[in-house]
Amino acid sequence: MASESTQTESAETKFVEDLAEKDDFAQWYQDVVYKAGLADESPVRGCMTIKPYGYALWEHMQRAMDDRIKATGHENAYFPLFIPGSFLEREAEHVEGFAPEVAVVTRAGGEELAEPLVVRPTSETVIGHMYAKWVQSYRDLPLLLNQWCNVVRWEKRTRPFLRTTEFLWQEGHTVHRTEQEAEDETLLILRQVYEDFFIKELAMPGIPGLKSESQKFPGALRTYTIEAMMGDGKALQAATSHNLGQNFARGFGIQFQDADGVVKTAWTTSWGSSTRMIGGLIMVHGDASGLRMPPRVAPIQAIIVPIWRKEAERAAVAALAGEVEAALRAAGVRVKADWREERPGFKYNDWELRGVPIRIEIGPRDAQNGQVVLVPRTDRAKKEIVGKDGVARRVPEMLAEIHQALYDAALAFRQSRTYRTSDYQELKAIMGDKERLGFVETWWCGDGACEAAIKAETGATIRCMPLEQPEGSGPCVYCGRAGEGTRWAIFGKAY
Amino acid sequence: MASESTQTESAETKFVEDLAEKDDFAQWYQDVVYKAGLADESPVRGCMTIKPYGYALWEHMQRAMDDRIKATGHENAYFPLFIPGSFLEREAEHVEGFAPEVAVVTRAGGEELAEPLVVRPTSETVIGHMYAKWVQSYRDLPLLLNQWCNVVRWEKRTRPFLRTTEFLWQEGHTVHRTEQEAEDETLLILRQVYEDFFIKELAMPGIPGLKSESQKFPGALRTYTIEAMMGDGKALQAATSHNLGQNFARGFGIQFQDADGVVKTAWTTSWGSSTRMIGGLIMVHGDASGLRMPPRVAPIQAIIVPIWRKEAERAAVAALAGEVEAALRAAGVRVKADWREERPGFKYNDWELRGVPIRIEIGPRDAQNGQVVLVPRTDRAKKEIVGKDGVARRVPEMLAEIHQALYDAALAFRQSRTYRTSDYQELKAIMGDKERLGFVETWWCGDGACEAAIKAETGATIRCMPLEQPEGSGPCVYCGRAGEGTRWAIFGKAY
Repeated sequence: MASESTQTESAETKFVEDLAEKDDFAQWYQDVVYKAGLADESPVRGCMTIKPYGYALWEHMQRAMDDRIKATGHENAYFPLFIPGSFLEREAEHVEGFAPEVAVVTRAGGEELAEPLVVRPTSETVIGHMYAKWVQSYRDLPLLLNQWCNVVRWEKRTRPFLRTTEFLWQEGHTVHRTEQEAEDETLLILRQVYEDFFIKELAMPGIPGLKSESQKFPGALRTYTIEAMMGDGKALQAATSHNLGQNFARGFGIQFQDADGVVKTAWTTSWGSSTRMIGGLIMVHGDASGLRMPPRVAPIQAIIVPIWRKEAERAAVAALAGEVEAALRAAGVRVKADWREERPGFKYNDWELRGVPIRIEIGPRDAQNGQVVLVPRTDRAKKEIVGKDGVARRVPEMLAEIHQALYDAALAFRQSRTYRTSDYQELKAIMGDKERLGFVETWWCGDGACEAAIKAETGATIRCMPLEQPEGSGPCVYCGRAGEGTRWAIFGKAY
Repeated sequence: MASESTQTESAETKFVEDLAEKDDFAQWYQDVVYKAGLADESPVRGCMTIKPYGYALWEHMQRAMDDRIKATGHENAYFPLFIPGSFLEREAEHVEGFAPEVAVVTRAGGEELAEPLVVRPTSETVIGHMYAKWVQSYRDLPLLLNQWCNVVRWEKRTRPFLRTTEFLWQEGHTVHRTEQEAEDETLLILRQVYEDFFIKELAMPGIPGLKSESQKFPGALRTYTIEAMMGDGKALQAATSHNLGQNFARGFGIQFQDADGVVKTAWTTSWGSSTRMIGGLIMVHGDASGLRMPPRVAPIQAIIVPIWRKEAERAAVAALAGEVEAALRAAGVRVKADWREERPGFKYNDWELRGVPIRIEIGPRDAQNGQVVLVPRTDRAKKEIVGKDGVARRVPEMLAEIHQALYDAALAFRQSRTYRTSDYQELKAIMGDKERLGFVETWWCGDGACEAAIKAETGATIRCMPLEQPEGSGPCVYCGRAGEGTRWAIFGKAY
């Protein structure tokens, strides 16, 4: 039994501006960001304005991430935006990595500053300075803090959410008594906080792994990452967790008197996830009609589209719409009704573009029968007619199904674009073919020279060495050598 | 019937560092901020590090404020940290007010910038630029947005929370069709958001009123304020709401086609509240023992202090403490148990310093009797013995009573330090006497010259002209004139 409520659908497509075809992925991405109302350009190069719909998404993501950070024993704090220029220099790799991309305040309050201030690109240094003051004894450890803030990195090429001059993020900074504790923390964050968040909130499968030396955070001992495959087969480093060893503790004098009375240098970690994740979820889940919001973080989980021609019909539709909206709200669903003076087809396209997981169509006949039509964003053909009393039970279920469908589709796509080969020519061919572009899993001897040559010749980098390494070993995909340093690695082109 | 659990109290005071006496109010304030662990100094002059306890307070305040902002129809968004220097100049009073205190980025990405970027001191200009793009038709209005962010003002003299180079705040920015709508919005925010927040969340009585021309926001048509009296009789401008008229709309070209087809200039408002409110609640509620946290925003609402001497006693105490903690948590109370290896008296002082509203003492005899001792921070003499099954009912009640007690005490203090006089010598004497310092309510002719003379001679400024103006009129406290422009005004010395 079909509902009349979808009759006008196809006729109205013209009301919504067309997105670029998905095979022009870069243009499609930019169209989705701007046309779905997630963000806008700003008058300052590379900065971004996050519009209400994009910011509401960020708020839901923040809440879900913050809950995990707190559930694992961390507290939030806030450290200064400005960092004395000299602080960066206390860690050699750190200054080399970040000095070229900092923004510098040289004038303030009408005067030239004696020491220029760097706008934080990340806060290991200024937080290290404070931690040296706060940590005295082993009883002060572990020190487990996080901050939500803005950071600035002067990027040459920028793209909304993915790479912007200013972005919003959380950065965790912890201090530990031993190297093992620091390593455990680094991996706890990677898996229990980040990996779990990506799977359960963003419906994004990610591969947890270790970065190679050339790709690690400047100043870290080891960097772990969650790598995700985007809809064009490229990789996105979705979040990172760093074991900083004693590098920053030495630079800033973070020492403690241990239980044995000996003064020791501490071990620190840092870890971050940012508004870049929004770019990731767009590129993983979006389709030709626009965005597909993962239900758990979607600002609007269900949109009611009322359909009527005559005024008399409107009243009956409005009564049922009001009833359904109230029932869903009571069930904890983020629901909205679209009463704009536009045709239904326009609204369908608009909310599909914006990625709302479930559309609820209510027409005059539905009102008469006390039913609604539920249309999942993931598959319009799977529409369901549900009696009004069943809506508050069925919608949350369907949201969970949509979450799973998004996850499954993303995983299936990644699997279809993941290749196991020890043939370098094959790797090269994959990286050069837009239709096949994806991840190549293979052996790497561990030599940075091979890694650099592969990058120069194919544009691919080692995205990570997965935490789950296969048994055995094999010849390096580039040089054919095998040995102690050999690791199973994932190569891909990266955002 | 007294519980044994408080026996050691007085003997242990020495374990907590003494605060400065409250008659050295400035030193007392700084002691509370640092010793209670709310904030710390930072390596950058005038910036502040907000420690976990202070930040948790801010998170609860943010949540409560954000709820009110959203409940009145506003959405959150995010705008760039950097503002092109030229933007400030588009509104004459605005640039005059803010140019002297901005921090300026002149170098970024290793190059000198062609146009220096100002770190936002407030965002009317960059938001005005975006709004000019977003607003086209009367159908786009009202536009009701808010952002939570950091801002920077290069202040000469800084004090933690009260006046810092960088601070955290929310700034609302709205666009309207008519002057009346803008005025209604300005007052809605003042009363339904800010005044309500101060009363219900911070237990702080405030006086809503209008600022004089000399005290208004640079670029505003009218500035409204909530003025609160601190524990030393000085005034704090706790939050402000500005009707910006068409000043910024003209500067940035925010225009719309009205229903009649005519293109018109819009009317805008802006309003803000910041981490400064934390300074306010400390200075309103604190006492000789330290902070007194308003219960609704207190990071810890009840602290369980277990008391035992022998190991055998510890187990029984721990069992009851665990039971009570679980029951309170289930009742939505933010509760913590202090199992540190310190004596009870040390803990009492420590949690009083940190302002936790209710202390729950559990000793061996309490464990035996299945009871606990509740001690309200507002009045230690009012301790109550409560059976364990009554705790989850009594604690929330007592929290509400403490809230009311804090509010009543703050209001009574303000009333005791508020004077009605038309005698200028009396005003002058009050402003010069630390024991009497407070608010003087009187008639002012409306002439800026009288206002300036009073400020020069007494240090007092017009804090506001209360929204509730008394009937009639009278002679100006300074010049004795009476006339059209006469207003009932509150004079005071301000933070």
